[in-house]
Amino acid sequence: MSDSATAKVLVSELLGSCPAPFAGYDRVLLGHGSGGRLSADLVSRLFLPALGNEVLNRLEDQASCVLPGLESARLAITTDSFVVRPIFFPGGDIGRLAVHGTVNDLAVGGATPLFLAAAFILEEGLPLDDLRRIAESMQAAAAEAGVTVVAGDTKVVDRGKGDQIFITTTGIGLIPHGRALSVASARPGDRVVVSGTIGDHGMAIMSVREGLEFETALESDTAALNGLTELMLRSCDGIRAMRDPTRGGVSSALNEIAAASGVGVELVERALPLRDSVKAACEILGLDPLYVANEGKLIAIVAAAQADDLVSAMRTHPLGRDAAVIGAVVAEHRGTVVMKSVAGGSRIVPMLAGEQLPRIC
Amino acid sequence: MSDSATAKVLVSELLGSCPAPFAGYDRVLLGHGSGGRLSADLVSRLFLPALGNEVLNRLEDQASCVLPGLESARLAITTDSFVVRPIFFPGGDIGRLAVHGTVNDLAVGGATPLFLAAAFILEEGLPLDDLRRIAESMQAAAAEAGVTVVAGDTKVVDRGKGDQIFITTTGIGLIPHGRALSVASARPGDRVVVSGTIGDHGMAIMSVREGLEFETALESDTAALNGLTELMLRSCDGIRAMRDPTRGGVSSALNEIAAASGVGVELVERALPLRDSVKAACEILGLDPLYVANEGKLIAIVAAAQADDLVSAMRTHPLGRDAAVIGAVVAEHRGTVVMKSVAGGSRIVPMLAGEQLPRIC
Repeated sequence: MSDSATAKVLVSELLGSCPAPFAGYDRVLLGHGSGGRLSADLVSRLFLPALGNEVLNRLEDQASCVLPGLESARLAITTDSFVVRPIFFPGGDIGRLAVHGTVNDLAVGGATPLFLAAAFILEEGLPLDDLRRIAESMQAAAAEAGVTVVAGDTKVVDRGKGDQIFITTTGIGLIPHGRALSVASARPGDRVVVSGTIGDHGMAIMSVREGLEFETALESDTAALNGLTELMLRSCDGIRAMRDPTRGGVSSALNEIAAASGVGVELVERALPLRDSVKAACEILGLDPLYVANEGKLIAIVAAAQADDLVSAMRTHPLGRDAAVIGAVVAEHRGTVVMKSVAGGSRIVPMLAGEQLPRIC
Repeated sequence: MSDSATAKVLVSELLGSCPAPFAGYDRVLLGHGSGGRLSADLVSRLFLPALGNEVLNRLEDQASCVLPGLESARLAITTDSFVVRPIFFPGGDIGRLAVHGTVNDLAVGGATPLFLAAAFILEEGLPLDDLRRIAESMQAAAAEAGVTVVAGDTKVVDRGKGDQIFITTTGIGLIPHGRALSVASARPGDRVVVSGTIGDHGMAIMSVREGLEFETALESDTAALNGLTELMLRSCDGIRAMRDPTRGGVSSALNEIAAASGVGVELVERALPLRDSVKAACEILGLDPLYVANEGKLIAIVAAAQADDLVSAMRTHPLGRDAAVIGAVVAEHRGTVVMKSVAGGSRIVPMLAGEQLPRIC
């Protein structure tokens, strides 16, 4: 929480002191890593003008590339750095997370994940036993997900210039021809489906950092979703888009879909699957579960007529047991996500503005 | 130099204090990032036992993978994190380096580089103008090399938990069928060719860090080698292996080839292309140019009968102007590199043992 406060102070300091080439800040803020509005700002105002091209500009979770000589599929490519702290947490560790996060970014694009590359930035002094546990954990996660770690790299930075270990994984997979999922494909009338309870990963991390204890332990939901997505895509041809709601949570994922598709999204609060322990932890810490990261969940946008069948199919999979329809795509309030509360009112669910939970993944 | 000293002290401390599950150290040392013997130790004793498989175990600069549905080529995959400091240096910056390093790891495997993924770990407080310069520099380098940045990610770590910017690039390319370069393919009688002057990158970085000034400025040689490698492979079918001698320098690259191929390597000191300014800087700092990183050079092992023609072809390319035969592969002293000095003697050129130049790339 103190990091978040720091970011806010820094924003106001910068607002007062600099000529604002970048709407109020001229340095990197913690919030630029939030997956929320500041992240989007950095991408749209700095990275895309500098590095943009037809593939990158689509802003999907994975690039979809035509590979010369390959007729049957497109190549899917995604990359993610993992800087989570602590590096070991209830339900997982940075290694498992680094495998799952990248596998999932491929899976939600309809890709079959095949290969992973893993690059390690180690801080001088990291116990080798920790590194070994992490590497073994990655191997186990990769084996479960059916992917192979084919390339690696290790760099070491001096003490105080890193934080134990950062891992960057890059995933490569294949998207069979005929599959064309896209965050730009949601249409009014579609339903919004979530694969299970939300906020588990973020609150597991926060409970460790804040020293919270509950009757039921909070555990990260970190898991590879490619088995579930294969089942979904085999059993339903009306899926328009999928996203894994990691940093920035369900709200950011849905705001991105609303913006990319030019539609509104209407969520129903009482339909959101939420563990009691996560709900309690969110209340204690003053956090909204819609903004809390998940690492083994996905959001799917599906044609209305197929939504119930899709949810039934998902519930046959261990990672989809708590799947539910949580809302609908609407033609109104384009680009905006609105939630109907249990009490009957409605509120706008904007993208995360600053940084709620730094270094959550 | 102080970092290197720290690493040495740490080694001796650890030697005295721990039960040595890992031959004298139980924590990550700066030398584990050197590209030398400690790096190799970490890979062979920790990463391969944990993550090893048929592809990874080959320890090439790039993975070569069979992609289902692709008949004409194998997929080449490589990943590298870049942690160089300073992030801007004579002749380049961390962004250019991150593109070139990964393009080159593909190129020396005979791959045509196609796609790059780039993941950024930013330290809170990094000036956005620096980030923009770096991103623009990456784009220029990618365009020159003919590759497209198709995927990206940004994470932010709190002040003091990173060092301005770390970039991990992953490269994907295609190796046409029929090309089978491998560090395990060197045979006695083959010649060792280098594409140009050695040590330029490392000494450019060191001259900035140490505040050295010379009549001729020291500049990094950072460059994308895929144009040169294409020319080489088109003009010569006797190339057995190529490597780009980055961290650990020419000595590490040749030691790896000697070990993987089970051969000896004999270098001729007076044949090594070396700029006067690099030579002078090495003398001042007590460094051996054979251990200093290059970022726009390659070593090729080629059948003896084709060596002169290959060098002639290379010299027609701007990045191969100073190409030279610098030694031979021999059946003696297997696994060992030996250099014949100008004075007529011979000395063993072992792998870098500790860390000579931390955070050089």
